[in-house]
Amino acid sequence: MPRSFASDNNAGVHPDIFAALQNVNIGHAIGYCDDVYTKRAEAKFQEHFGENIDVFFVFGGTAANVLGLKAVTHSYHAVLCAETAHINVDECGAPEHITGCKLLAIPTPDGKITVAQIQGFMHGVGDQHHVQPKVISITQPTELGTLYSPQEIRDLADYAHQHDLVLHMDGARIANAAATLGVTLADITRHAGVDILSFGGTKNGMMYGEAVILFDRRYAANFRFIRKQGMQLASKMRFIAAQFEALLANDLWLRNAIHANTMAQQLATSAAVIPGVNITQNVQSNAVFAVIPHDCIARLQEYYFFYVWNEPRGEVRWMTSFDTTEEDVRNFVRCMREVVKTS
Amino acid sequence: MPRSFASDNNAGVHPDIFAALQNVNIGHAIGYCDDVYTKRAEAKFQEHFGENIDVFFVFGGTAANVLGLKAVTHSYHAVLCAETAHINVDECGAPEHITGCKLLAIPTPDGKITVAQIQGFMHGVGDQHHVQPKVISITQPTELGTLYSPQEIRDLADYAHQHDLVLHMDGARIANAAATLGVTLADITRHAGVDILSFGGTKNGMMYGEAVILFDRRYAANFRFIRKQGMQLASKMRFIAAQFEALLANDLWLRNAIHANTMAQQLATSAAVIPGVNITQNVQSNAVFAVIPHDCIARLQEYYFFYVWNEPRGEVRWMTSFDTTEEDVRNFVRCMREVVKTS
Amino acid sequence: MPRSFASDNNAGVHPDIFAALQNVNIGHAIGYCDDVYTKRAEAKFQEHFGENIDVFFVFGGTAANVLGLKAVTHSYHAVLCAETAHINVDECGAPEHITGCKLLAIPTPDGKITVAQIQGFMHGVGDQHHVQPKVISITQPTELGTLYSPQEIRDLADYAHQHDLVLHMDGARIANAAATLGVTLADITRHAGVDILSFGGTKNGMMYGEAVILFDRRYAANFRFIRKQGMQLASKMRFIAAQFEALLANDLWLRNAIHANTMAQQLATSAAVIPGVNITQNVQSNAVFAVIPHDCIARLQEYYFFYVWNEPRGEVRWMTSFDTTEEDVRNFVRCMREVVKTS
Amino acid sequence: MPRSFASDNNAGVHPDIFAALQNVNIGHAIGYCDDVYTKRAEAKFQEHFGENIDVFFVFGGTAANVLGLKAVTHSYHAVLCAETAHINVDECGAPEHITGCKLLAIPTPDGKITVAQIQGFMHGVGDQHHVQPKVISITQPTELGTLYSPQEIRDLADYAHQHDLVLHMDGARIANAAATLGVTLADITRHAGVDILSFGGTKNGMMYGEAVILFDRRYAANFRFIRKQGMQLASKMRFIAAQFEALLANDLWLRNAIHANTMAQQLATSAAVIPGVNITQNVQSNAVFAVIPHDCIARLQEYYFFYVWNEPRGEVRWMTSFDTTEEDVRNFVRCMREVVKTS
Repeated sequence: MPRSFASDNNAGVHPDIFAALQNVNIGHAIGYCDDVYTKRAEAKFQEHFGENIDVFFVFGGTAANVLGLKAVTHSYHAVLCAETAHINVDECGAPEHITGCKLLAIPTPDGKITVAQIQGFMHGVGDQHHVQPKVISITQPTELGTLYSPQEIRDLADYAHQHDLVLHMDGARIANAAATLGVTLADITRHAGVDILSFGGTKNGMMYGEAVILFDRRYAANFRFIRKQGMQLASKMRFIAAQFEALLANDLWLRNAIHANTMAQQLATSAAVIPGVNITQNVQSNAVFAVIPHDCIARLQEYYFFYVWNEPRGEVRWMTSFDTTEEDVRNFVRCMREVVKTS
Repeated sequence: MPRSFASDNNAGVHPDIFAALQNVNIGHAIGYCDDVYTKRAEAKFQEHFGENIDVFFVFGGTAANVLGLKAVTHSYHAVLCAETAHINVDECGAPEHITGCKLLAIPTPDGKITVAQIQGFMHGVGDQHHVQPKVISITQPTELGTLYSPQEIRDLADYAHQHDLVLHMDGARIANAAATLGVTLADITRHAGVDILSFGGTKNGMMYGEAVILFDRRYAANFRFIRKQGMQLASKMRFIAAQFEALLANDLWLRNAIHANTMAQQLATSAAVIPGVNITQNVQSNAVFAVIPHDCIARLQEYYFFYVWNEPRGEVRWMTSFDTTEEDVRNFVRCMREVVKTS
Repeated sequence: MPRSFASDNNAGVHPDIFAALQNVNIGHAIGYCDDVYTKRAEAKFQEHFGENIDVFFVFGGTAANVLGLKAVTHSYHAVLCAETAHINVDECGAPEHITGCKLLAIPTPDGKITVAQIQGFMHGVGDQHHVQPKVISITQPTELGTLYSPQEIRDLADYAHQHDLVLHMDGARIANAAATLGVTLADITRHAGVDILSFGGTKNGMMYGEAVILFDRRYAANFRFIRKQGMQLASKMRFIAAQFEALLANDLWLRNAIHANTMAQQLATSAAVIPGVNITQNVQSNAVFAVIPHDCIARLQEYYFFYVWNEPRGEVRWMTSFDTTEEDVRNFVRCMREVVKTS
Repeated sequence: MPRSFASDNNAGVHPDIFAALQNVNIGHAIGYCDDVYTKRAEAKFQEHFGENIDVFFVFGGTAANVLGLKAVTHSYHAVLCAETAHINVDECGAPEHITGCKLLAIPTPDGKITVAQIQGFMHGVGDQHHVQPKVISITQPTELGTLYSPQEIRDLADYAHQHDLVLHMDGARIANAAATLGVTLADITRHAGVDILSFGGTKNGMMYGEAVILFDRRYAANFRFIRKQGMQLASKMRFIAAQFEALLANDLWLRNAIHANTMAQQLATSAAVIPGVNITQNVQSNAVFAVIPHDCIARLQEYYFFYVWNEPRGEVRWMTSFDTTEEDVRNFVRCMREVVKTS
């Protein structure tokens, strides 16, 4: 299959990460995280985020989000998030099923929620008839490819902490956010007041594996039980650990992210000049949202696989990944131009 | 770390399986199981188990068990299993949490449950005060390394089907069972009346990945939602699929299992002659259970990592794996002899 | 405390129902529903709804709703309802916690959802990433006191049944709806295509007790386990049964409802002519929604207890009950007039 | 139906309690516990248990147990209890479903568990593969009618508190225990170290209603949400409150319990002398367990309804209640004598 623009998870494994898998495939290692590779990977996370953090590896991104939320909630709590949030629409109800909590979804034009919007959900605090807000969950970058600035995150964190709420970040593509903003990973997470982070690996060149990072150690005391009961404790843990170690070493995480972001910029810039093609969201990471003529969608999909985001609007989503090439982009745009021309 | 006798999941990845991972790491593949690699792996399962089955890949073994149980239960149901079953003692309550069901645990000397024992739990059927038995779950080989014969499985299956129960098999090491019994994988599962099978990959040379096989297709209709909501839908699915394809090709599954079983036999035979060492369970797969002098346990663990099974009894568990060598066994037994001699 | 306009559940027990409690308080009765009183009450329901139905008594209204939903859902399902639905805002997340399902809330101006709105939620059917719509839940009368016509219910039922959905009705005040529409209880439930009904007793003069009525008997097979596991199986069941028998006999349910509705009409009519008071919803049952001058709310509450519905809008809710008198209404309106005059 | 010996919940409502219901059935009262009657009933509980306690009324006994457990557990916790415990066998899996926890059931000859037995379950503490013991739950009197002495309770409490466990007591018939022991309600609960108590009302003469008493106020902070989400918040709460106020006033709770216990003693004494009838448990409350000739069971049940406890053993359970008369006992024993004589 040619490289698609469907999702960054359609890509394979980055060669450096694959090599890391090979390197640790020697001899025996204690299972379930008591091995030296896991320790080394955790140390790598501390290089980026500082000390006094707790890092737990899980298999996938839905689990990272859901178990992170479970670490701080009881079943009568509510999680506030954007209507477009992955936890709200793309996890088949796992957050509700596993945590028991209700998600309170906030409509947004760009995937970003604000303190003002959250205030509107706080009137039921203390009233036994209503679920009790406990978590603000944001996605960085959002599912629409847009970014929260460090200050916007800080504002949400401050509000959260003033109201006994926890700030959770779905960072499935956190590397892409840091790359665009030109900041460290810590700048838009721990230093901005984030309490719990889903740190994405798979979408940035890993085979599998995500990390839940708890910046408040109180939440970590029992997380190992939550992970195991959540069916996310890998027996051969060294293979997740080795990937993360490679990803976080030598700026691989950043190089991959910068590359994907750059490809998205090139794609958006080139596509935007095609008549009938309109970019609908700020391109701040590796996603491009565009409206294209309705009759072009299926025809373009014959050549390149991608997802329709909003059928009635004719809005589509294109994603780039660490392995997207400039030639891929040129070919895709050329194809698009031909398809649109004949529509 | 030297090769331990702690668990078959302390081993790494078999070279053939690793090569398969490398082979599929090219270009893009649609995520979440709509790819050709997944189709190919499913076809491989059909070679072994026949047509009209449904195969779902998940990340780990706990998930394979729990989601398989969830496919056929409501929260008011009960699952009957041996007291020693992995689902009962080693999954941190995941079965109860995720399915809502109660586990009814049956004491056994050897990890095997019988129809007669199950009958004792059926008196509450139809009584609204009691959980309703719905699943008989057996492990093959058991957590004690022992085996159900095909006829014993058939007897349980017949009883189950006569009483509107489902027969579930935790086959985390099913290859080791088939190897010892000299039968096909289907002979001790589908052909013996098993309805749902957790087919293990990780313990037999894979990096990660297990399969839930549904022999009754009615249970499959909604399993994809159960898997996703159960946080077990891998985005880069091709990498689980490729491993299974390699494992099931060229009898790799069988060769690995035969080897591990043979090493266990050699270990048991050699250890049994050491004064003070008593083998406590039939060695029918790749596990050896033994009582050794109390004061030898910690001293032997200084050289080789393994688990104490029953502290008061001084019973330990040793496991072999696909990569255990005859020399490993000889060295371990020699070390044991020395330790015991000086106790 | 003077009779308030806060809620119909601030009222006590109707004398006829209290007498029924007294009448059955003789001798012993088998617990948990196998008694003659329960059989008699069920027969009474059959007089109203026809044969081949299943009636289960529970303690309260939240349970009636939640367990009715649980009877037809798996945890990966979704329940479609109005944003204002009791299940969505007033049950502290019990539906999500107990069923595991996600609620998909639909904004409405008047508490009523339409087929057109539901269609917008059906695009994810079959997609494993998304919760699967399974139930349309409507409230009759709505939480805003408005009514679905029998045809509107039928339209929703037809759409539901064409798409493998179940139509659930929260009928906590179903008597008030039937009273206004001048139809039988069956006309707006079973005959209109409703599959599952929460039949309210407490708000219409009972002490406690609600009924779940299953019009599709397939859903009833295991409901007794759902009820017991849902902690809603009363041991001294005869006391719920006797109340329902009395409520459904001699048109007591209808007389109570007509009275409460009439009081609401009188209240709305009288209040509407007060300058600064605006009735905001059609008064079709026993609820009156009104905007009154902001500074009058607290002052009026000093005399009569009632709830603020929407603080920013200055919208309040007044409810009448079976025991509200014409004098109560006159006094309340007079008080309101005085308070508004001096604002 | 003649008064049976099936269960104390086959009895009706004590006249004093019924009168209390009548007395509060006047005017309006705020729903959901913010009424004066609830405050008065809570004060009554403080008279018996002292200050600084939190009392929450719920509809039924299963809910009292389950929500009390939920107040202190996460889903990865385990609850230790006797194999015969109501939570283990008679609540249709509600504890597992609602709390997510695993119950670890301990075999006992008499329904009473000991510190020594609990110790055997503590080896997995801290191990992520195993559920984590958090609660010791005992029943007083036990389901077998036997009693823990205050010292036995204290021993369990001390062990619990030394190991970060909570001591929960199912006191569905706590009054019967206090009556036999000649101690106050507090002596065998709060003063003996119990942290959470299910205080039974229904079995001792109430129509419905149980109380969860939290002696450690930390657990109470969020219990109102647990109760509402647990579908146990009565809207017309005054009617539960009034019953408890009456039960706790004028020693009604004690008089009822003493009477029922006395009837059980008379029954046991008279039955024990019938050839072929053997009392199998100490009669310390209002339950009598006996083995009677197998062929007599069904014949005796033709005259009096009661439950078979253990079919193979021919063991039956007879219970007395506040309204059992000496004549009832005499007639029952006479009938039994006739039946046994002709067996």
